[in-house]
Amino acid sequence: MDKRPIGVLDSGVGGLTVVRELMRQLPHEEVIYIGDSARAPYGPRPARQILEYTWQLVNFLLSKDVKMIVIACNTATAVALEEIKKEIDVPILGVILPGSRAAIKSTKTDKVGVIGTKMTIESDSYRKVINLKSPKIEVYSLACPRFVPLVESNEVNSSLAKKVIYESLQELTGKVDTLVLGCTHYPLLRPIIQNVMGTGVKLIDSGAETVSDISMLLDYFQINGIESETLNHKFYTTANVQSFKEIADTWLNQDVEVEHVDL
Amino acid sequence: MDKRPIGVLDSGVGGLTVVRELMRQLPHEEVIYIGDSARAPYGPRPARQILEYTWQLVNFLLSKDVKMIVIACNTATAVALEEIKKEIDVPILGVILPGSRAAIKSTKTDKVGVIGTKMTIESDSYRKVINLKSPKIEVYSLACPRFVPLVESNEVNSSLAKKVIYESLQELTGKVDTLVLGCTHYPLLRPIIQNVMGTGVKLIDSGAETVSDISMLLDYFQINGIESETLNHKFYTTANVQSFKEIADTWLNQDVEVEHVDL
Repeated sequence: MDKRPIGVLDSGVGGLTVVRELMRQLPHEEVIYIGDSARAPYGPRPARQILEYTWQLVNFLLSKDVKMIVIACNTATAVALEEIKKEIDVPILGVILPGSRAAIKSTKTDKVGVIGTKMTIESDSYRKVINLKSPKIEVYSLACPRFVPLVESNEVNSSLAKKVIYESLQELTGKVDTLVLGCTHYPLLRPIIQNVMGTGVKLIDSGAETVSDISMLLDYFQINGIESETLNHKFYTTANVQSFKEIADTWLNQDVEVEHVDL
Repeated sequence: MDKRPIGVLDSGVGGLTVVRELMRQLPHEEVIYIGDSARAPYGPRPARQILEYTWQLVNFLLSKDVKMIVIACNTATAVALEEIKKEIDVPILGVILPGSRAAIKSTKTDKVGVIGTKMTIESDSYRKVINLKSPKIEVYSLACPRFVPLVESNEVNSSLAKKVIYESLQELTGKVDTLVLGCTHYPLLRPIIQNVMGTGVKLIDSGAETVSDISMLLDYFQINGIESETLNHKFYTTANVQSFKEIADTWLNQDVEVEHVDL
């Protein structure tokens, strides 16, 4: 039993899709969240810089005495997880392995699409993991660099969003039966993505899948939260508090406490 | 990547139900199995002795250079997992947590039955874990000390088995919508148990559920097996090789290599 919070980091608001699922499945766990919206998106940045920023977020969470860290950002997972994991003492996990396992489980035609940021797609992490476990699966990867800015500016239902998503996904439609949302921002665009891909395509929310792994590691390391504790979830953003809070309140369906922090 | 085998231990042949599922879900993993049939069942033995025997099995597997250990025995998990986990360097896991999570996920009526050996039921491990995560679930626990001897003597389809199972489960029928097979021997009796409980009751095979955790930990510790390697699964028993081999060949549907070992 361990009443310390779980730390969740993201380049911006996308990691909230992991937090929503975490709160649903693990209601005894307190969350500390840090979103680096001031420097989002991470996708187009050089790897060296993504690693540096991710370390800053990890160190911020460690300073808050978290018991576990979730890199709720595919780009940061692809670039930084392995290196950071070697250096810190608390369990840390990312979103790519759980998403890959779910995709392998889902596909019937052995044709899986993966969409993500430029860096996530260039890292080829999903293809590598999926083909390591199941070499016969064809993985169609596609960078969608215009999606994260739509979410960070809270334009998830705009006609611009519909146009951008329709245009971006054209080369995947009809080719796959499973599509990995390889960026934690994308579940906020899910209805439009599902509409463009068609109802027959199974969308994999890597972030939500990650919560099963979080739950398992809480058991493995015997650090589950305690039922009776009052939970004080805390959200930090490197950018504007009000914009973050608008998205967080809506997505999490509660009044969340948000504070600005400079890194 | 790590081509060393996964070690699986059990008081006898019950852990083969975990191995079958492991081979299906993780076909690149080599298995070393040790079954202590000479001293089965562990259920009625004192805790001190179960701990001592489990240590012997663990040390045997460690001497074979395994990369992970699975305690595929509920009794040994209940008594020995926590203590042994503190002392050894390779990841080790048991069957109770995965079975408990699956039961919580399955029940609609919040009424869950757990059957196991005398020691597993007396340890109250399933109830503790289930209620820690979900306090509202009512757990009905029942020791079935006559089940393991049926399996170890390969009487899984006999009329004696039907009679024993029918009599034993009377006090659970109609009370639960989910029944945890809290002993890895019990899946070998599954058809009869399902028949007695009724088709509306979901049977949870703790051993099979454990394979998801094994898969997750292989990812977490980055010790997945390698596809191209030839696998030489190896089975050891402390009792008669021929009896073990008969059950193993049938259950695993292959010709397995079995060797006798004295501990």
